[in-house]
Amino acid sequence: MIDTFEIIGLIAAVLTTSSFVPQVYKTWKTKSVGNISLTMYIAMFLGILLWLVYGIHIHSISMILANSITAVLTLIMLIFKLRYK
Amino acid sequence: MIDTFEIIGLIAAVLTTSSFVPQVYKTWKTKSVGNISLTMYIAMFLGILLWLVYGIHIHSISMILANSITAVLTLIMLIFKLRYK
Repeated sequence: MIDTFEIIGLIAAVLTTSSFVPQVYKTWKTKSVGNISLTMYIAMFLGILLWLVYGIHIHSISMILANSITAVLTLIMLIFKLRYK
Repeated sequence: MIDTFEIIGLIAAVLTTSSFVPQVYKTWKTKSVGNISLTMYIAMFLGILLWLVYGIHIHSISMILANSITAVLTLIMLIFKLRYK
């Protein structure tokens, strides 16, 4: 049974994760990552992986969902950054 | 007493939050927010606020810290976006 706060977490997950998608799509189309540095992407990617570990530890479905999808999206951006510098 | 996973959460908080800072600084300096849409910033801001509510509910120090600081940073970007469109 999912409680009210898990629903809030899931809405949060949808909002923050989906807000990444247009940026990934735009990068894909333009092959340009913009001025965000590689270091920043690496920091973000590692941070999201740690949030995922944290989410697994506290058994938070919304954190696991949000951070696994966002980790993949950030990894795609990281690959773009390395490829189309 | 902070356990190992709370330390992982705190490291995650530092990494994901600090990865936002250069973007805010750059926007401040150049007065240009880039091509990320207003809708996306609003979605991200609302999502982060809900993560903050979730973090408060589960008494997660790292989630409260990360999401309150990131909420402020996203709000600054949102204001920039509205002001220097």
